[in-house]
This record gives sequence, C-alpha cells and structure tokens, in this order.
Amino acid sequence: MYRVLLVGLGPLGTRIGRELISRRVGTLVGAVDTAPELAGQPVSKLIARADGGLEVSSSLGEFGQWDRVDAVLVTTSSTVRACAPTFAACLREGKAVVSTCEELVWPWLRERALAGELDATARRHGGRLLGTGVNPGFLMDALPTFLTAVCSEVESVRVERVQDATTRRVPFQKKIGAGLTVDGFKRRLAAGGFGHVGLGESMHLLAASVGLGVARWEERIEPVVAARMLPGVGGEGRIEPGMVAGIEQTATGWDGGGKAVVEMLFHAAIGAEGPRDRALIRGNPAMEMVLPGGVHGDTATCAIAVNAIPSLIAAAPGLHTMASVPMVRHVRGG
Amino acid sequence: MYRVLLVGLGPLGTRIGRELISRRVGTLVGAVDTAPELAGQPVSKLIARADGGLEVSSSLGEFGQWDRVDAVLVTTSSTVRACAPTFAACLREGKAVVSTCEELVWPWLRERALAGELDATARRHGGRLLGTGVNPGFLMDALPTFLTAVCSEVESVRVERVQDATTRRVPFQKKIGAGLTVDGFKRRLAAGGFGHVGLGESMHLLAASVGLGVARWEERIEPVVAARMLPGVGGEGRIEPGMVAGIEQTATGWDGGGKAVVEMLFHAAIGAEGPRDRALIRGNPAMEMVLPGGVHGDTATCAIAVNAIPSLIAAAPGLHTMASVPMVRHVRGG
Repeated sequence: MYRVLLVGLGPLGTRIGRELISRRVGTLVGAVDTAPELAGQPVSKLIARADGGLEVSSSLGEFGQWDRVDAVLVTTSSTVRACAPTFAACLREGKAVVSTCEELVWPWLRERALAGELDATARRHGGRLLGTGVNPGFLMDALPTFLTAVCSEVESVRVERVQDATTRRVPFQKKIGAGLTVDGFKRRLAAGGFGHVGLGESMHLLAASVGLGVARWEERIEPVVAARMLPGVGGEGRIEPGMVAGIEQTATGWDGGGKAVVEMLFHAAIGAEGPRDRALIRGNPAMEMVLPGGVHGDTATCAIAVNAIPSLIAAAPGLHTMASVPMVRHVRGG
Repeated sequence: MYRVLLVGLGPLGTRIGRELISRRVGTLVGAVDTAPELAGQPVSKLIARADGGLEVSSSLGEFGQWDRVDAVLVTTSSTVRACAPTFAACLREGKAVVSTCEELVWPWLRERALAGELDATARRHGGRLLGTGVNPGFLMDALPTFLTAVCSEVESVRVERVQDATTRRVPFQKKIGAGLTVDGFKRRLAAGGFGHVGLGESMHLLAASVGLGVARWEERIEPVVAARMLPGVGGEGRIEPGMVAGIEQTATGWDGGGKAVVEMLFHAAIGAEGPRDRALIRGNPAMEMVLPGGVHGDTATCAIAVNAIPSLIAAAPGLHTMASVPMVRHVRGG
C-alpha cells in the first residue's frame, strides 16, 4: 500500500483518490487544494472512503508531513509552467510524483528549460517525476512506441484515435464543439484554449523515443461537419447537417529532408464511424495495431495514474517519460 | 555504438550480429562458439561486415577481453540450465546480457533456484540479465501486459497468435509438423522436444506482471488436421485432408478458485485462416488489441534482441524481465 498525497481535488483528482483506495493500491495521507472553500474540510466529503480525520490542506507548506508520503499525484493543470512549483517542492522532498499534466508527457516540447530544471532538482534530491494519462501518455504515444520494439527499421508512424462521442458525457461533447455552427467553432478556436491538449506532446514522445528526428511540425484543428442528422448534445435535440458534430485534430512531423515521419489523427465527434485506436508502423516489419472501439478515456486515465506509481518508484531519480520507466501495467491491490 | 560480445554463432546469432552492425547500433568486439570447426576462424566469414581481425573464440575464457565489452548477446540454447554458466560468467564481469533463451523470459517457471542465483550474481557484480524475443518475449506477454496499464481491473486475459505457415521457411513448416500423419505427429510429440517453446513462460510473465495469481496451469499440444487440400511443405506436393497442416498449442492458467485467468493460443499451420496477434482483456475497461496478419517472427526476434541492449543497460543491476526494464523500443543506429 503506497502512502499517497493528492494535489488537486477536481473531478479527476477525487476520482483518482477514490480509485486508489477502492483498489487497495494506496492510502491517502494528505490532500491539497487551493480552493478557499475546501480548506480544512474533511477529505472524506469528497472521497468517501478517505481517512475520517484527514482535512484538505490549502498548500503543500500547510500539509508539511513529508515523512508520511511515498508518492504524490498531481492533477492541477495541463501546463508544466502552472504545475512546476508543486513539482519542484515535491521533488525537493525526494518524492515520486505522478501527474496527469498533459504537457508533462513530453515537457521538452514547450518548456525545455523548465524540464531541465525539474530533472536537475529530481536528481539532486532523489525525486522522480512522470507525466501520464490515457491520451496523451499511452494510446497515441507510449503504446505505439513499444510496438516498435520488434522493428529493425522504422520509416514512419501514423497513429489514429477516433472516438464516437454519441454516448459520452455532455462536458466531453461540449469540449469537442458538438452542436456549434462552423462559425461558432472557428470563433472558439481563434479565442484559444480549445481542442485536445497533448497531441504535440504525444508526437514528440513517440518520435524522440523511436529516433524519428522531427525537424518541423504542425498541428491543425478543423470542425467535423455533420453530413446527416445526428443526435444532439446530451441526446437532446439534433445536430443538423452542416452543423458541427465534433473536432478533428492532426499533427504532422517532418524530418530534415521534408519527409513526414509521424502523423497523428485525433477525431472525436457525435456519430463518428469506426471508433478505434490504431497505429501503423511503416518499417521492417511493417505493422498495424488496432483496438476496435477504442479505449474509453475517463476510466483509463484514472487507472494509468494509479498504475504508474510502482513503476515510477522503481525508476532512477529524475524526470521520466512513459518510455523511460519500468513498464507501467495493471497493479493488483493488496 | 555499443561494443557487443556475441555468444553463439548459429543462424540466429549470426543474423543478430549482422543486424547489429548494419543498423550501426553496435560493433562486434568478440564472438564465442564452442563448435570446433569455428574456433579461430575469422568472424567475417560468418558475419561479412565484422572487423576483419576478429576471430571466433571457443570459450569465454579464451575470449577474455572483458574491458572491451558493453553488452553480451547469448543465443546458444532455449533452456536456462544450459545457458546458466555463460550467463553467470558474463554477470560476474558486470556486463549487460541479452539472450533469446526462451526460458529466460520468465526463468522462475522452470528454474526458480537458478534464477535466484543468477539474480544474486548480477546484483553482486553490477550485471544485468534479460530474456527477450518476439515470442516468447513480446507478442504474447510483454505487449498485452503493457495494454493493462490503462485498466483499473483485470479479470482475465486471452492471447492468440495465429500464423499462416504457407509461405514460411521449410524448417519452420517442419518444426510445426506440417505434412506428417496424425500418428506421426503424436509419435513426435511423445518423443519430446516438439512444439513452441515458451508458451508457459509467456503466460507466467503476463500473469505475474499483472497480478493474476496462477495456482495451476496446463499446456496442451494438438495437431491441426487439414480439412481441405493444402500446398505441401516448401510448396512441393500437397497436404491431403486428414494429414497434419500444423500445430495448435494452448496454455491455461487457473487461479486458486479454479477460474481461468490466462488463456494462450498458439496456432501455426499451412493454410491457417485469419493470421493475427490478438489480446483480449476482460476487465475495466475491457479491451481488444489486434495486429492483423500477425508479426513475422524471424525479423522481429533479431530486432528486439538488438533493441533491448540500451534498455537493459539503463536498468538497475539484476535479473530482469521485459516488464521490469525501461521500455524496449526501436533503436536508431548512429
């Protein structure tokens, strides 16, 4: 049983906390959230089976009981910059830190200097840091990377994730722009903060791990326009032909000679056909891997965050990726 | 460029040596084989691009130049017992040892005491030992194990490898019993040493890595009987209905309550339909992974042996499995 400190008590953090306890993989020894309304509240109000005496701390400094902690789970932000002070504080205590921060899956893409600092801090104090999740963190990067283990040659890799959003939660349907007009979609896109976060990180984790030198890369986001009548958001009303059913996001990486060596397709829409996770390796041997129906994101992200704890603890101190730690796999609780 | 000592200069060892050099992942600094006719021969007679001055040593003792070695590749035998003196000698020199020895993929199954000794030797002297290959070592064990990284629950796992042997090499077709009568197949089976080596190892690597406690297990081998006229071995003649087209090998592992928690199916036959590698995870989320057509074994085993070198060197000293080393993946040569 790992003794875990939870940092971030949003929907994902509390769900991970519940899973950690119910699977008997770990116990909660602390919970930190900066929301003023949570400070001092019993953690068991948010995570029913948490220790009754445990209260939410408003900061790491207030928590303070580092000798009780084996690992820290951080779910506060998608950006490395926002999470960095938390990561650094935990690493200085020599802890293993697993985070669902999307940028941390390959932090050298957007925060090269900060990644170097976090790595140095981790090594100096015996801490360990890993970004994970189902996507980014597994389906579009770590899993296809592992598939290349049997390749004597890899020319290029294409990864696809196609999700049918018809029966997904309303927040997910809204996140992909379902029900908007094409103009509304484009305005939202121009305003920023829209789209799947981490496609560039997935591409770079894969490319760097397999030695596909990416000299230039580009990401594009387009609306998926309904070609037929589709059920509306939350099953209410309808999406008319010509309206937006979802999002299609692609990322392409070219080598120095201008050859596309990595292609990523993320497609999530109401009514999407042939939902799947799929990787195509062009090389020797050439390979295709398909997960028909695809993997449901919410369940899987919580699971992989919990499952990553023992692997990260077994790794050498430093800033890690899903390709540098001993294999993350299902952990059977005690 | 890793400096590699090759132990075993059979078809697999020489092919791995060629690949190591042609991919510029490593250089050969030594080659050992006990065959009297090879002793003192130039290695370049067997591996064209090997250093012209390099000669085959007849033993590790005769080779002796340990300070020139980063890693050792051992391809001498399928059994841990036969390889153990070689492994131990290399581990005492603190080397990283990658082997295609099938039993080494999960040595605790058939050689628990010896595995413990090899692990202790490795830890004492800073050596590292890993058994790998495409099967056992990847398709039926390590890859499905990694797939469970996103599972909060794993009830049971089924893995299938179906190979169409129609266009495979004659030795492979003969190895699976193609062209025999059913009686001839059964006689050969009774004589021993027949069938795919490593299915039990794959099952136990997977089960132990994912925490599926196997209390009892069983392996069965049956002939695949031709139901229609099929092309004969090497494309010569025909396999009549009622004759043997290949082999079907299954392994099942039950938990303490008598529930089948791991099932493995290895089916290789001339005319086999739907060749594939496939894993089914029953759990949360349930998952299916398919590699349509399957992965060709010969190319892949050489590739993964070469690709495992950097991962094993990056691991902590000791006896490893494909699930305990940092992720093995395609290595781009220098």
